[in-house]
Amino acid sequence: MSQHVVVIGAVALGPKAACRFKRLEPGSRVTMLDESDVISYGGCGIPYYVSGEVADEQELRTTSFHMVRDVQFFKDVKGVDVMPRTRAVEIDRDARKVKYKNLATGESGELEYDQLVIATGATPRKLNLPGEDLKGVHYVSNPHDAVAIKEAIAKGEVNNAVVVGAGFIGLEMAEAFTDLWGVDTTVFEIFDQIMPRLVSPEMARMTQEHMEEQGVQFHLGETVKALEGDGRVQRVVTDKRTVEAECVIISVGVVPNDGLARDAGLECNERGGIVVDETMRTTDPAIFSGGDCVVVKNLVTGQPAFLPLGSMANRQGRVVGDNLAGGSSKFDGVLGSFVVKTFETSLAGTGLSLESAKAAGLDAASVLLVSLDRAHFYPSKDLMTLELVYEKGTRKVLGIQGFGNAGDAMVGRINAVAAAMKFGLTIDELSTMELAYAPPFSSAMDVLNSVANMADNAERGLNRGVGPEGFEKLWEQRDSGDYCFLDCREAPDAEPLMEKHPEHWCNIPQGEIYKRFSEIPEDKTVVLVCNTGARAYEAQVMLDHKGVKDAVTIRGGMAALKKWGMDV
Amino acid sequence: MSQHVVVIGAVALGPKAACRFKRLEPGSRVTMLDESDVISYGGCGIPYYVSGEVADEQELRTTSFHMVRDVQFFKDVKGVDVMPRTRAVEIDRDARKVKYKNLATGESGELEYDQLVIATGATPRKLNLPGEDLKGVHYVSNPHDAVAIKEAIAKGEVNNAVVVGAGFIGLEMAEAFTDLWGVDTTVFEIFDQIMPRLVSPEMARMTQEHMEEQGVQFHLGETVKALEGDGRVQRVVTDKRTVEAECVIISVGVVPNDGLARDAGLECNERGGIVVDETMRTTDPAIFSGGDCVVVKNLVTGQPAFLPLGSMANRQGRVVGDNLAGGSSKFDGVLGSFVVKTFETSLAGTGLSLESAKAAGLDAASVLLVSLDRAHFYPSKDLMTLELVYEKGTRKVLGIQGFGNAGDAMVGRINAVAAAMKFGLTIDELSTMELAYAPPFSSAMDVLNSVANMADNAERGLNRGVGPEGFEKLWEQRDSGDYCFLDCREAPDAEPLMEKHPEHWCNIPQGEIYKRFSEIPEDKTVVLVCNTGARAYEAQVMLDHKGVKDAVTIRGGMAALKKWGMDV
Repeated sequence: MSQHVVVIGAVALGPKAACRFKRLEPGSRVTMLDESDVISYGGCGIPYYVSGEVADEQELRTTSFHMVRDVQFFKDVKGVDVMPRTRAVEIDRDARKVKYKNLATGESGELEYDQLVIATGATPRKLNLPGEDLKGVHYVSNPHDAVAIKEAIAKGEVNNAVVVGAGFIGLEMAEAFTDLWGVDTTVFEIFDQIMPRLVSPEMARMTQEHMEEQGVQFHLGETVKALEGDGRVQRVVTDKRTVEAECVIISVGVVPNDGLARDAGLECNERGGIVVDETMRTTDPAIFSGGDCVVVKNLVTGQPAFLPLGSMANRQGRVVGDNLAGGSSKFDGVLGSFVVKTFETSLAGTGLSLESAKAAGLDAASVLLVSLDRAHFYPSKDLMTLELVYEKGTRKVLGIQGFGNAGDAMVGRINAVAAAMKFGLTIDELSTMELAYAPPFSSAMDVLNSVANMADNAERGLNRGVGPEGFEKLWEQRDSGDYCFLDCREAPDAEPLMEKHPEHWCNIPQGEIYKRFSEIPEDKTVVLVCNTGARAYEAQVMLDHKGVKDAVTIRGGMAALKKWGMDV
Repeated sequence: MSQHVVVIGAVALGPKAACRFKRLEPGSRVTMLDESDVISYGGCGIPYYVSGEVADEQELRTTSFHMVRDVQFFKDVKGVDVMPRTRAVEIDRDARKVKYKNLATGESGELEYDQLVIATGATPRKLNLPGEDLKGVHYVSNPHDAVAIKEAIAKGEVNNAVVVGAGFIGLEMAEAFTDLWGVDTTVFEIFDQIMPRLVSPEMARMTQEHMEEQGVQFHLGETVKALEGDGRVQRVVTDKRTVEAECVIISVGVVPNDGLARDAGLECNERGGIVVDETMRTTDPAIFSGGDCVVVKNLVTGQPAFLPLGSMANRQGRVVGDNLAGGSSKFDGVLGSFVVKTFETSLAGTGLSLESAKAAGLDAASVLLVSLDRAHFYPSKDLMTLELVYEKGTRKVLGIQGFGNAGDAMVGRINAVAAAMKFGLTIDELSTMELAYAPPFSSAMDVLNSVANMADNAERGLNRGVGPEGFEKLWEQRDSGDYCFLDCREAPDAEPLMEKHPEHWCNIPQGEIYKRFSEIPEDKTVVLVCNTGARAYEAQVMLDHKGVKDAVTIRGGMAALKKWGMDV
């Protein structure tokens, strides 16, 4: 039976659903409308176009075989009719009609549909600041923005840039400005950390440290009050300072475009986003939706989640295409996996951060591990930092976040956890998770197994540790006389610390703890440090055995403190 | 309650179990014996020591913080007593005693145990060939071998090397000889492909092609009959030829050392390997085992599996340590994940290959995908080849194998599948698997999602394709008049093929299939090719819609043919 499917929106989910459906039912007709004449683009690629890594904006909307995905392409190659510069203004669900307006000609019209797909995406959130409409103020949402930003930089008009909001796009844009163009870039973030809620303050600070080393300036816990300039932006005014900026990026999240659905009486989330079921159907069975305009289930909390990512849109789009053709494909929810590359490092995660887990009412804890990502004798080894979040009692993995070099090794670990979390992964299962092993790729005990082992040890009360933030608090009390700071590395490694703080640090190599036990003061909390925390844990076990009650390790050791930017 | 644990074997599982137990019960005593005086080494690192990437053999048996793991180390740092050069000769289970012999002094003695760990590992399989005991013939199993091999090369004694057996170690050693030392290296393999049973013939050939480009010679389906030389090996004689070799590596698998256990009446597999349960206990509850001397459950087939890998030994070792201390940790089985780096590429997998799946009696099929590993516009993108093996009907994922560049991207994908396969992953779940997305790391529709989509399409009968091997068979019949070879790329891309074989190939870009349908002969099987297979699939859908019954695509397209070494 031939049918007519109308798709509103032609960026990510729309085209994917349209093309998949058309392959399944080549005899049916698909019409896709979009307000813009620039369609089917990879918005996530914009920072790489601005940075110069992608030479031509058009590459963001070509296929992998270099054909531009324009109206003609969809017609010839995909058999899909596209109506560009066309706004859907109303959905008449009873009559199964979409009313539209051609933005070029002003003409109106109607399209009858058998099934409808709402793929209206999201719009960058505005701050409604004075001066927000000045020239030079941009939201990173479509190729028009990208071209405008890059043109201004290339013309030499931009010496100073400001990024408002330190989420994915903000960080990627900060890198783009700094790395290739040498633009002085300042990031303002209203929260006390970058990537708020997504990663712990410690991981956030490690990333921030690295970006600062590359020249990006950060001001956290600071609110932008106004943008100033004469026609063109020249200054950014916050509650604490005024900085010059010829280019301002506002990247403070996006708002789902659910107005059309809402007006048509489809159920929407009170905080925004069209409600869909596992088949991606809205509350009208003839209308599907997906991508940046919907809410889906968070698989960890069971709560509605808004996760505007191109990858989600594509995977959901295929499900929509299947089901338009009478299938029963399912998209059961999201974990919230993410990754952002920042210069030579990357930051990634899946599931919940400790803060998010606690906010969701879960009895959560986390451990921080710094460990080698492959065999310690293999030349290209590097340190990887992982924070594993788990539920106490059930030992269920709630999330994991990673910080490492900009390669694929850390992201691969996050993906492995994401793949298994959906099935209710526990720390015990992660402890024996089977990762492919050869020295160029992994340690015999992979870093993922190790972080699970650490969580197991923490949960059993065997490994009592603090991260860099916790250590800083202890270190601030170093003159109280309550603490014994014990470096349990071999003497040559410990020497710099001993020389710098002879009054605060002592050194007993871990292998000499029993022999030299009498040197350890009985009435103090022993704070144990080594390179990454492994020996400190062994030392703590030894002290426990000798009846010392208050020994505590620094998780991640000196390596974590250094990444975190603390100079002990 | 303090107890005495005896551990027989001090390489991988033994030390792991001993140290874990000792941390859990610092008051108990652990004695570990080993026949050698070189213990706790990373045997998997030997090829990297021979190649020169690891400078000093000692690095294979240090900790990550550069302490040598010798007898003194275990005593001081781990609290474990080691008896080196000591062979366990008998286990008296009733009396709970191990009888041993000191290989240095010849003295015998007994150790009483409360619990025992058998960690006797495996021994390289010998071929019992004439000349196998000549000088210069090596098995890659311990640091002594490694030092001998490297010394001979470094002295300039080795101009030609032969590797017998094209499994992991054989391939790694071939790379080590060729890459850094420029030794002419020939690999003999009795099977018709390298990495037999682990990967498909097509993936095997892609890896072989790459290694041949780097200078390694392969002779497959060839049996080594004798090693010849005067005291020192000089020639290798096969059933087809004689080649010169001053160094011969025999890497044809290992045999579990289960004799001690077998003599003690513990249940062993008829094909070798001690039988253990999920807690790693043998049939005597006071005796644990693990590592290279045991069989464990294959989680896909449910059958006993022998998987001698350092990573398995380490993960199992921790479980043994837990349970020695009264815990209830479990190791529930293996999928068979592996990875091997070969020059600039790597080959990895988990679960079953198509051949193994069929051999296990499963109704299996597979699809081959060649696709970009990250956003097509991101500069460091590269092609990744994946073969997904699934069970027809149930749509359960049975395994996945990958071939790609030597980075971590492909291994990360294999690990994600391994992580989820344990939970019964289906191709539908893999189709929506949530991988962290950003253009530097992934496509919006990740290559893993894509290979699952391809399997879904194949299973529905929508995508009918053959791999390079299947294409070669069709191409051999090109003069039969039964086939129309259709390149569905744009004209400039198709030009070389058209010029070379104007009589066999025709070119209709995929977007013009409907328009130019009359050009396609009705009575022939249409064989569709493009760069990687994506457009060929779209073209096939179009031809199906037009009623052409026999269209078939080349999966992986021209890219797969090239990697496979076929010059069309």
